[in-house]
Amino acid sequence: MLKDKIPVAVLGATGSVGQRFISLLDQHPWFRVAALTASERSAGKPYRQACHWILPEAMPTWAEEMLLLPSAPEHLPQARIVFSALPADEARIIEPLFAGAGIAVCSNASAFRREADVPLLLPEVNADHIRLVEQQRVNHGWKGCIVTNPNCTSTGLTVALKALDDRFGVTRVMAVSLQALSGAGYPGVPSLDVIDNVIPYIAGEEEKLEWEPRKMLGKLTGSQVSLAPLLLSAHTNRVPVTDGHLVCASVELSSPADTEQALEAFHSYQCRPLASDLPSTPRPVIAVSSQPDRPQPRLDRLAGSGMTTVVGRVRTDPLFHLKFVVCSHNTIRGAAGGSIYNAELLVKEGLV
Amino acid sequence: MLKDKIPVAVLGATGSVGQRFISLLDQHPWFRVAALTASERSAGKPYRQACHWILPEAMPTWAEEMLLLPSAPEHLPQARIVFSALPADEARIIEPLFAGAGIAVCSNASAFRREADVPLLLPEVNADHIRLVEQQRVNHGWKGCIVTNPNCTSTGLTVALKALDDRFGVTRVMAVSLQALSGAGYPGVPSLDVIDNVIPYIAGEEEKLEWEPRKMLGKLTGSQVSLAPLLLSAHTNRVPVTDGHLVCASVELSSPADTEQALEAFHSYQCRPLASDLPSTPRPVIAVSSQPDRPQPRLDRLAGSGMTTVVGRVRTDPLFHLKFVVCSHNTIRGAAGGSIYNAELLVKEGLV
Amino acid sequence: MLKDKIPVAVLGATGSVGQRFISLLDQHPWFRVAALTASERSAGKPYRQACHWILPEAMPTWAEEMLLLPSAPEHLPQARIVFSALPADEARIIEPLFAGAGIAVCSNASAFRREADVPLLLPEVNADHIRLVEQQRVNHGWKGCIVTNPNCTSTGLTVALKALDDRFGVTRVMAVSLQALSGAGYPGVPSLDVIDNVIPYIAGEEEKLEWEPRKMLGKLTGSQVSLAPLLLSAHTNRVPVTDGHLVCASVELSSPADTEQALEAFHSYQCRPLASDLPSTPRPVIAVSSQPDRPQPRLDRLAGSGMTTVVGRVRTDPLFHLKFVVCSHNTIRGAAGGSIYNAELLVKEGLV
Amino acid sequence: MLKDKIPVAVLGATGSVGQRFISLLDQHPWFRVAALTASERSAGKPYRQACHWILPEAMPTWAEEMLLLPSAPEHLPQARIVFSALPADEARIIEPLFAGAGIAVCSNASAFRREADVPLLLPEVNADHIRLVEQQRVNHGWKGCIVTNPNCTSTGLTVALKALDDRFGVTRVMAVSLQALSGAGYPGVPSLDVIDNVIPYIAGEEEKLEWEPRKMLGKLTGSQVSLAPLLLSAHTNRVPVTDGHLVCASVELSSPADTEQALEAFHSYQCRPLASDLPSTPRPVIAVSSQPDRPQPRLDRLAGSGMTTVVGRVRTDPLFHLKFVVCSHNTIRGAAGGSIYNAELLVKEGLV
Repeated sequence: MLKDKIPVAVLGATGSVGQRFISLLDQHPWFRVAALTASERSAGKPYRQACHWILPEAMPTWAEEMLLLPSAPEHLPQARIVFSALPADEARIIEPLFAGAGIAVCSNASAFRREADVPLLLPEVNADHIRLVEQQRVNHGWKGCIVTNPNCTSTGLTVALKALDDRFGVTRVMAVSLQALSGAGYPGVPSLDVIDNVIPYIAGEEEKLEWEPRKMLGKLTGSQVSLAPLLLSAHTNRVPVTDGHLVCASVELSSPADTEQALEAFHSYQCRPLASDLPSTPRPVIAVSSQPDRPQPRLDRLAGSGMTTVVGRVRTDPLFHLKFVVCSHNTIRGAAGGSIYNAELLVKEGLV
Repeated sequence: MLKDKIPVAVLGATGSVGQRFISLLDQHPWFRVAALTASERSAGKPYRQACHWILPEAMPTWAEEMLLLPSAPEHLPQARIVFSALPADEARIIEPLFAGAGIAVCSNASAFRREADVPLLLPEVNADHIRLVEQQRVNHGWKGCIVTNPNCTSTGLTVALKALDDRFGVTRVMAVSLQALSGAGYPGVPSLDVIDNVIPYIAGEEEKLEWEPRKMLGKLTGSQVSLAPLLLSAHTNRVPVTDGHLVCASVELSSPADTEQALEAFHSYQCRPLASDLPSTPRPVIAVSSQPDRPQPRLDRLAGSGMTTVVGRVRTDPLFHLKFVVCSHNTIRGAAGGSIYNAELLVKEGLV
Repeated sequence: MLKDKIPVAVLGATGSVGQRFISLLDQHPWFRVAALTASERSAGKPYRQACHWILPEAMPTWAEEMLLLPSAPEHLPQARIVFSALPADEARIIEPLFAGAGIAVCSNASAFRREADVPLLLPEVNADHIRLVEQQRVNHGWKGCIVTNPNCTSTGLTVALKALDDRFGVTRVMAVSLQALSGAGYPGVPSLDVIDNVIPYIAGEEEKLEWEPRKMLGKLTGSQVSLAPLLLSAHTNRVPVTDGHLVCASVELSSPADTEQALEAFHSYQCRPLASDLPSTPRPVIAVSSQPDRPQPRLDRLAGSGMTTVVGRVRTDPLFHLKFVVCSHNTIRGAAGGSIYNAELLVKEGLV
Repeated sequence: MLKDKIPVAVLGATGSVGQRFISLLDQHPWFRVAALTASERSAGKPYRQACHWILPEAMPTWAEEMLLLPSAPEHLPQARIVFSALPADEARIIEPLFAGAGIAVCSNASAFRREADVPLLLPEVNADHIRLVEQQRVNHGWKGCIVTNPNCTSTGLTVALKALDDRFGVTRVMAVSLQALSGAGYPGVPSLDVIDNVIPYIAGEEEKLEWEPRKMLGKLTGSQVSLAPLLLSAHTNRVPVTDGHLVCASVELSSPADTEQALEAFHSYQCRPLASDLPSTPRPVIAVSSQPDRPQPRLDRLAGSGMTTVVGRVRTDPLFHLKFVVCSHNTIRGAAGGSIYNAELLVKEGLV
């Protein structure tokens, strides 16, 4: 049984997102982890020794003594899929090597998100963009591929925007985030910077939040995705929360909608059919909170095992049309869980 | 010397803002505290006994044994100015009694902020609005008066907007706050609600933030203030910070300005001359932070002894014209310190 | 199937411990919740409306519309077991009424812990003390009974001490706690008191910690428990942690033991056989952490679904014999989970 | 005037303790900062550029453009005193070079604390130990000297123990600390490790706390300090507090004392006369808190400008004689402020 599972590897397994990959892949019905990689400094060590484990869930026992390998395809002959938790600069060099070696790369890194032939994928939103993989293989002569998931803050916001865009058309979005610490990795943010404090700045984050939703909400025509015509403005803030990002959003629509109509759109939003029955499909895709002070990171981040997007405080906006708050788990839906969901879609579509 | 100082009282002296009044009035060059009041439950007790002091500064020794009085003018025959830290519903009943008794009420409560003849005052912004007091006395036959300071979140935002409005005209503002716990008073927010968490809701706060700046930026013509024509949209959030509110603002202008011009407007902003040489005048009124990750509450709240508004991260906005972040100390500039500054202006203008 | 389950009720269901009872009883294999009670102010309201739910797990749907009843046996004709999360003063009056009405009371309150005929029970430590129930019934003429679980801080410490006491005899214990906020209930500790702060005081706590372990480690002879001869000294501190108590302990033994022997005692500790195969039996009873900086509340509190006691940093003590650190989930093993485990033992022993 | 001040330098000026040195030396009546040093990576840069300033007080303007020098005596020809905030391993090599070059080194590093001829100094406790400097100069042929201050956690505890030891004799001490984050420097503790968490381990700390008080409470006879005969046991914990260490202490005495006598001893404790009128002398040396829940770090750390030791919760101990809690500011009294106080004593005694 276990040996029938698809062998996968995690690249950059010791960091905060790497750990989440390992935790989520434990007992995955389709995948089994065949290899873990780390930087040269850690390669050769058992995982338990090289990794400062920071999750409340215990490290899976199968991972403890696994020896860390270098992040190169020749060291991972077994893996058919690799999950990449590499830093962007390393990802840019390493991920194409895997794709060229016939391996499907499901990447959490930002390196290739803007490439025209690389899907930036939230399966419940734009599962059809997976078809870009075919064009990518033609362009590069790869047998493998690179598929990316968006920045952790773009994730929840885009799911919520999709529900509105389908019904009313979204034209302008003001998004202000309150982001969790795990988004900065480990060791990440020094404690002296966030005890009794918040930091109104995250390097490079606003640029991602102002661009990535446009690609994900864009239309695939032939082998090309056209950016959605909406405009976004972002302010990103770091707050002393371990996991779970909030986004306060004000949205302008093409066809004005009131609170009732917006709630109806959120409530009735359905996952793209292509991606609706996978192991990691969020159930539900969107949960709507009716309490006036929700969603909150500590209370709502684990909705739908961390894959559900929680929307609340839907109300009219004096400048645009609607205001609301979105909560999404940044290292599950917004990182490792998202990459795994993408991999499941690749398998289902016969692309692995 | 001390007996030449103006005798003042603090109404609602045991709460979080009341404590800040006492701390700031300690050694004030013009005022001496002649009386403290509290709810009936505490009246008659020494201040030290009735008050759960939560400031790092020690309780002034003169306050320790002062007996708490009921909040009624007949119990405070000495006071010529009262500083009100009463809840809004009590303020609505009690403050007019003091004004009628010939006493100047400098109130932190929201009860009368929207009254046409009550100044909503930030002296560095709209010191001239103090003239409404004359109309107020005519309307009510009072010898005293009621002067209010704005909500703690409106405060810093309005100072920053004023600098831009004077130069470029402000037409639309999207404001998202990250507010400190002391703004909710004591005991206020339960710790279980904000450890590893933020709360995207503060009852009644967004309504204040969407209206108060319009009155303060409004023009005084004759005995009337016309609301400034700008529109605001607010999202208000509670974060685990003891003191110091942040506001992320995106602003649309009548005359577009770039970052350089905006910085120049912030840097060169001058206090209204009427209010520029008072003991509590912020020095400077606006401090501009040049570091990319500032202002931050823990590091910037005490700028100018907590009276200065700190602005940073000034940059262009993809939807409107400018984005920036404002930090202001919510219980000093945004509450007790603001009321004291208002009282100083009343004294200077001969209205006490 | 469901109707074959034993009907139970939760007294004081809206508070922090009450919520934990409801969450843990959801899907319990032996029990089904037939009624929930609350103070008079809330009686008659649906649970969802009266309760400010603060757990990350969603409120079970069966609880949402359940109408809250007064805490009196005549309102709960169905219940055969009641779980009491009442304050001590109410428990003192109400719990005997239930016992008199033939109902088994599994209480988290401190009211009756010191009564000679009331078991103070940690089944993995002193399951045999359950026999006090028979004496209790004789003394009071009850058909029901009252069984208590210890204070949340005594819990983990006593489990750890038991492992040592069985092997080496414990004579003196210095215990310093770092306790979570949920131990103070909701709203409990104001956030302004614990952000950037700790509080070296918890009313009434040190007295409990210095006495309760002596009863639990005491011997049952006939129908009487003699207090164990050990002496304890406690310092109790509140820290900004949501759940999970730490205790730093230094221990003097009758037969000196070194670190190796202590570790062996902890590793090999077995649950009392009477209580070793119940649904809530901790698996394992004690987990020994080998990392130098563990246990930690956020990482270890959910070991064994929150029922396991985690021990770490076992080392020699320059004054006594051993030092170590204990972590235990205060609202699961130390409160609601402990009461449920006690109820399971009552059922198994035919005492319900 | 300024040029008459003694020129000093700060070694390791960019770190958390280095910043505190700069802040405390700003406007010091006797000293002026003539030079700042840093690691090679930062040498040559202006201080403002190389330093991530983390104090709420603004960086003094004189420091902003000061160019960082290497930490070697040949680069600091002006300095007559250097304050060392170097890591222990660097201090071990560098500090003797300065002492050999005729400069007085007031060190916060642990490198030489255990040397028989190096004073481990808390002037309010053992000012007379300064005489070790003469022996030190003989031993090494130095014209300068090295004087150390203790570990930040030993500091407050030792001051409190001294007051008891003088009166009653202290024989055994159990000490459990709750330590602030700034004690770990910057970046120090990752935020993910301490949000909703505490860490029961600080590398190397317990060893210091179990030894340093013995040297400071020891008697100087001739040119030698004999260790005081008390025994200590320590548990050290990291808690999410920015500044201010708490220690829970249980103490055994030679001559038993009750709470009243202990309070009297704390209240009447006087600074050693040699050190009682220096600019940094704590005023008072010990403050006794009468509230049941004090001292607390956020509220008490700045007592006496951060130089006072605050003692509270004095009560009898069931195992030893007394229990109490100590609060001390770890980067002021426990680090930079302590070193400066030592330097003042050197100057007064004509040893600079």
